[in-house]
Amino acid sequence: METCKAAVFVGAGKPLAMQEFPVPPLEPGAVLIKSLVAAVCATDVHAFHNPRAPHPVIWGHENVGAIARLGKGVTTDAYEQALKEGDRVIYYPATCGRCFNCLAGGLPCEVRRNYGLRPFTTPPHITGGFGQYVYVEPNALLLRIPDDMSTERALFAVIGNHTVMNGLEKLGGISVSDAVVVQGSGPVGMGALTQAKLAGARRVIVVGAPAGRLQMAREMGADETVSIEEYREPEARAQRVRELTDGRGADMVIECSGADTAFQEGLEMVRAGGKYLNLGQLTDYGPMPVNPSLITRKSILISGVLGPTFKHVTRALHALHARVKYPVEKLITHEFPLQRVNEAFRVHETLEAMVAVVRPNG
Amino acid sequence: METCKAAVFVGAGKPLAMQEFPVPPLEPGAVLIKSLVAAVCATDVHAFHNPRAPHPVIWGHENVGAIARLGKGVTTDAYEQALKEGDRVIYYPATCGRCFNCLAGGLPCEVRRNYGLRPFTTPPHITGGFGQYVYVEPNALLLRIPDDMSTERALFAVIGNHTVMNGLEKLGGISVSDAVVVQGSGPVGMGALTQAKLAGARRVIVVGAPAGRLQMAREMGADETVSIEEYREPEARAQRVRELTDGRGADMVIECSGADTAFQEGLEMVRAGGKYLNLGQLTDYGPMPVNPSLITRKSILISGVLGPTFKHVTRALHALHARVKYPVEKLITHEFPLQRVNEAFRVHETLEAMVAVVRPNG
Amino acid sequence: METCKAAVFVGAGKPLAMQEFPVPPLEPGAVLIKSLVAAVCATDVHAFHNPRAPHPVIWGHENVGAIARLGKGVTTDAYEQALKEGDRVIYYPATCGRCFNCLAGGLPCEVRRNYGLRPFTTPPHITGGFGQYVYVEPNALLLRIPDDMSTERALFAVIGNHTVMNGLEKLGGISVSDAVVVQGSGPVGMGALTQAKLAGARRVIVVGAPAGRLQMAREMGADETVSIEEYREPEARAQRVRELTDGRGADMVIECSGADTAFQEGLEMVRAGGKYLNLGQLTDYGPMPVNPSLITRKSILISGVLGPTFKHVTRALHALHARVKYPVEKLITHEFPLQRVNEAFRVHETLEAMVAVVRPNG
Amino acid sequence: METCKAAVFVGAGKPLAMQEFPVPPLEPGAVLIKSLVAAVCATDVHAFHNPRAPHPVIWGHENVGAIARLGKGVTTDAYEQALKEGDRVIYYPATCGRCFNCLAGGLPCEVRRNYGLRPFTTPPHITGGFGQYVYVEPNALLLRIPDDMSTERALFAVIGNHTVMNGLEKLGGISVSDAVVVQGSGPVGMGALTQAKLAGARRVIVVGAPAGRLQMAREMGADETVSIEEYREPEARAQRVRELTDGRGADMVIECSGADTAFQEGLEMVRAGGKYLNLGQLTDYGPMPVNPSLITRKSILISGVLGPTFKHVTRALHALHARVKYPVEKLITHEFPLQRVNEAFRVHETLEAMVAVVRPNG
Repeated sequence: METCKAAVFVGAGKPLAMQEFPVPPLEPGAVLIKSLVAAVCATDVHAFHNPRAPHPVIWGHENVGAIARLGKGVTTDAYEQALKEGDRVIYYPATCGRCFNCLAGGLPCEVRRNYGLRPFTTPPHITGGFGQYVYVEPNALLLRIPDDMSTERALFAVIGNHTVMNGLEKLGGISVSDAVVVQGSGPVGMGALTQAKLAGARRVIVVGAPAGRLQMAREMGADETVSIEEYREPEARAQRVRELTDGRGADMVIECSGADTAFQEGLEMVRAGGKYLNLGQLTDYGPMPVNPSLITRKSILISGVLGPTFKHVTRALHALHARVKYPVEKLITHEFPLQRVNEAFRVHETLEAMVAVVRPNG
Repeated sequence: METCKAAVFVGAGKPLAMQEFPVPPLEPGAVLIKSLVAAVCATDVHAFHNPRAPHPVIWGHENVGAIARLGKGVTTDAYEQALKEGDRVIYYPATCGRCFNCLAGGLPCEVRRNYGLRPFTTPPHITGGFGQYVYVEPNALLLRIPDDMSTERALFAVIGNHTVMNGLEKLGGISVSDAVVVQGSGPVGMGALTQAKLAGARRVIVVGAPAGRLQMAREMGADETVSIEEYREPEARAQRVRELTDGRGADMVIECSGADTAFQEGLEMVRAGGKYLNLGQLTDYGPMPVNPSLITRKSILISGVLGPTFKHVTRALHALHARVKYPVEKLITHEFPLQRVNEAFRVHETLEAMVAVVRPNG
Repeated sequence: METCKAAVFVGAGKPLAMQEFPVPPLEPGAVLIKSLVAAVCATDVHAFHNPRAPHPVIWGHENVGAIARLGKGVTTDAYEQALKEGDRVIYYPATCGRCFNCLAGGLPCEVRRNYGLRPFTTPPHITGGFGQYVYVEPNALLLRIPDDMSTERALFAVIGNHTVMNGLEKLGGISVSDAVVVQGSGPVGMGALTQAKLAGARRVIVVGAPAGRLQMAREMGADETVSIEEYREPEARAQRVRELTDGRGADMVIECSGADTAFQEGLEMVRAGGKYLNLGQLTDYGPMPVNPSLITRKSILISGVLGPTFKHVTRALHALHARVKYPVEKLITHEFPLQRVNEAFRVHETLEAMVAVVRPNG
Repeated sequence: METCKAAVFVGAGKPLAMQEFPVPPLEPGAVLIKSLVAAVCATDVHAFHNPRAPHPVIWGHENVGAIARLGKGVTTDAYEQALKEGDRVIYYPATCGRCFNCLAGGLPCEVRRNYGLRPFTTPPHITGGFGQYVYVEPNALLLRIPDDMSTERALFAVIGNHTVMNGLEKLGGISVSDAVVVQGSGPVGMGALTQAKLAGARRVIVVGAPAGRLQMAREMGADETVSIEEYREPEARAQRVRELTDGRGADMVIECSGADTAFQEGLEMVRAGGKYLNLGQLTDYGPMPVNPSLITRKSILISGVLGPTFKHVTRALHALHARVKYPVEKLITHEFPLQRVNEAFRVHETLEAMVAVVRPNG
């Protein structure tokens, strides 16, 4: 019987444990994915430290794989491109179309959680990219990766870029010639930088640290960087941003840092009539000091999203394939085999890594 | 020489002082307005206590007047309705079309401040509704009040309703069948309630106090009220709102209370994917406890505005004329002659009054 | 074995034929609906005359039914309201979440056609309201009708109102105080009139005929009507609309007539900067005379939709339940038992009927 | 006394006539501009053939000039950048803030016509770029051209790009990864191509002729071109566009051709749920064959604009300065001294020229 090794989260603070699972037979419509490369996401790291995080679960939702086996009836991806074994794909659950969020529109499905985020107790168990194989249920969504695109480059369609695209759509987008501030110089911040440049921003300012990340941001096209090591006070950083934006502030600020005081800082950076996309505040730090009168007095338009939709994954892949010149794969600074997944978590957490990936099949 | 008595703000905490000014001759295009009724606005009261508030100034920006004299060349209002002496009008400065805000669009003109908010040191001095006459500069905007509409009813086109309309436009409006929460049961809250009902909200919930105001809200069409005297904790109020909205929260929350902790409370009241219009936070209380992760996790769309545009004043007048059945003029609970303007401020501040007005010409 | 009588469309121009079908056993998750009342829709009538219309099919997509049997596992409607046999419901397929339109968003699912519009050759056959029973597949969407709401009133949640709501959302809605023109005085026009009044339009002008329908429109709240029998030329009607809208034209025009020249006429009726919702042009008449320079010169925002989403059905039901005062059920002018369904088609086509319904179970 | 030579339109079909005007003394706040380069616009050519076109008028609204004299009190441009004689600028009238369109928002001012489009009979006469000097009235809007930007490059901020930006804003913009069709390969089409690439379109398809223009489009970044000389039938072109867009059609179509049948052709090219920006239909050809059911059935969002706002001129200049790599000045294919302005019109009309300019001061 075929088996699949996977790294399992077994409780807060405990190292991911290597376990072995049977690979179940494929139902009609299902697909077995061989995980090629899976990145450690900040979400995983937060969950790792969260005593209430559900487990057991195989993480690895930022994943690209290859088709190991196609279930009966699966012949194409979601856009009717033919599929065969060996083709590389990104995979997502289809939305249920029936939950409150699906009926309301514009919100993540409450029922079908992404792969890599599904606690399990029963078969098929293997539902995350930190395992050799992923069992993709019938009627899921597949997106074929073009043959002339590297697996590593394709991975960035599910790191940052997709969520940024969803969030920007909610706020009516960046306009050509906008001045954009990106708060945070991690992988999501790099996605925001990428998308802002693609959308024709005239000036993109990345606020973050450490120096190496800011250097990378400049290589990727950031017009300016503001180091939080150099400008240590939020007010100094906001002042610096205003200097760089004709004294008015940015047309759009995108919060990607997740820092507990970042939201207030961003409100100070946006111009009157500007927009603020709050992506980074996934972690609930409880109430933080925020001045809501800035929203009224500056008439700021604000929103946030938790993640992407499949449309945005597709669009991110297309953009990375056709329009992004920068070799984004350089953002992968650390690679590990599956057995060393816990090291990948460590270098993520120490900020040594920009993006740390695991290669479950070597 | 003709003179004009007016109540002048002469510094924080000092009673408004009755002063007398010469009525200047009219330039071509200017208009002299006889102030009929002017309401005390919370903005005035805040300025009254603010040591940095500019002075001297004749307040009274919530004002309806009658045309005392038409300057040469003024024959119609902004919509080409003929004007003659004695006609009642609302008046606003035209935007300058040249400042940063005018060029950016959707923001209040930085140059031409509203009447009733202009500090003065030189003629024409008389620029606020808390005086017998208002000198309206050439090329200002006039809006004729229909003959079959009472002056008091027309006043509400410049109390709350106009600003609410501007804010709602910024957020894409209320949809028919929405559940709407209005935070605050003062004049702006009553404007929000009025507009929400007009826009087809299925359920409007007013959160406020004291009991008399909530009673008035119910008379005006509020489907539910939540008393902050009864539900004393923010979380209890948010819980009550969720109970009244199928456990999900409101489609739209409109903050009109100006209370320092109201913004966070409102974030708890809005549903995932809902909208939050932050009108009340005009006063800068500095940083307050706010949980920005709610914006990300619930994907809330948020904005605010400082005031209306003339379009919204016009639309508010039209709505009050043609569609609002409730006798909104009942919200005027206190009336004073000009000399007793300081009493009007007092009853506003004690919340004795819903709307306290001055009649500068008796 | 239980059987179900139904009226089957068997080809263009042929009377619907009464046929009898076995009622299949219910799968888990499925529901059997007893059809209470089903309206003839213009779509049905067009299909009736269309040689390319697919058949056999049981029409009757404007339908309200009662639960005859609940499949295993079905305990609530889509909003978690408990369901039991006998409860009245509206039913819709869930979207597939996988087709091009579902992935793009804002478009009708290409895969799961509405009940009443599904050609069949195999079981369960009985998928339309013009039959005694409707077999509703597993995982469909149900909407419980409040006990204090008549079946006839609920029917209007699936006649016109739902589609109008979807279309208005696409264009950013009607604003309070808008002047709105509705082209067409049939059932969709009446839905548009209803929604425009609900949304706070200051003036709603219905353009149509014959006199009886316009009379009904005025009873429902139309502020003005323009008879196409009186104003026989399109330009005369456009001129009349401009007279009724300060010479400028309407803020919003909603085309609900389906007349072949209506679109051009509507372009003449909308003001500069106004919006035009094109709902009526379902039938492909081929190219008609239209002046596209009006779109550029007046900067009109235009769109259309083919039908509703389930959210809009829900919102329409809520509005009809809680906010619409007019007894919309009066729009049902003709009722027939199932066997006389062809008479219902006839009175629809002659315009004798506003809404003609069939009661498949008497 | 100083004089100014200018080319005056004196009636349909008559060659522009060289006339000489006195240069009036400058009022406070006014500015005298020395016209450096002015392009012939299709609007001018249409007016040239229009018996109802008002005259006399000095055309030349696509103009860049240098400050010849600053009126008293003028020290900066609209964004507070210092100005001195000799600085190169773009100039626009400020909006009046009082006409119907200004009050409604989002529409061109009805009162203050652009320079180069103002018929005159009295001083200051000299109000168009086809003259040596332009008298810019007090309180107009000036935009300083950066020192490191050529005059010719700056000219493109007022050719096509600015109007395209305004139109795109009205429709919510292009999204990164969109497939965009541009109908027309003249100057406006080139502006649309430029803006679409800047906004991150994945694929831009230009439909037009002749071959030289399409070649230029490809040099500027068009991913595909469709020649109307090769694909001679509208349906063939629409089919070709669908082939290039996965069979679905484009996410956005921008009509810039002004051809009388272009609108219908574009409706066939846009995908379900796509957007259509109709810029080209400035000329009123009267009713043309258009199928409005495409709007309903494909749920297309459509709009158009007549021209830009000053914000869009500014943003176009910024984009051309900071982001556009292509040497757009190469689009200027013909240059003439003022006396030969009629030749500039000729080469525009024969399509020999992409952009033909006049240099009124040599």
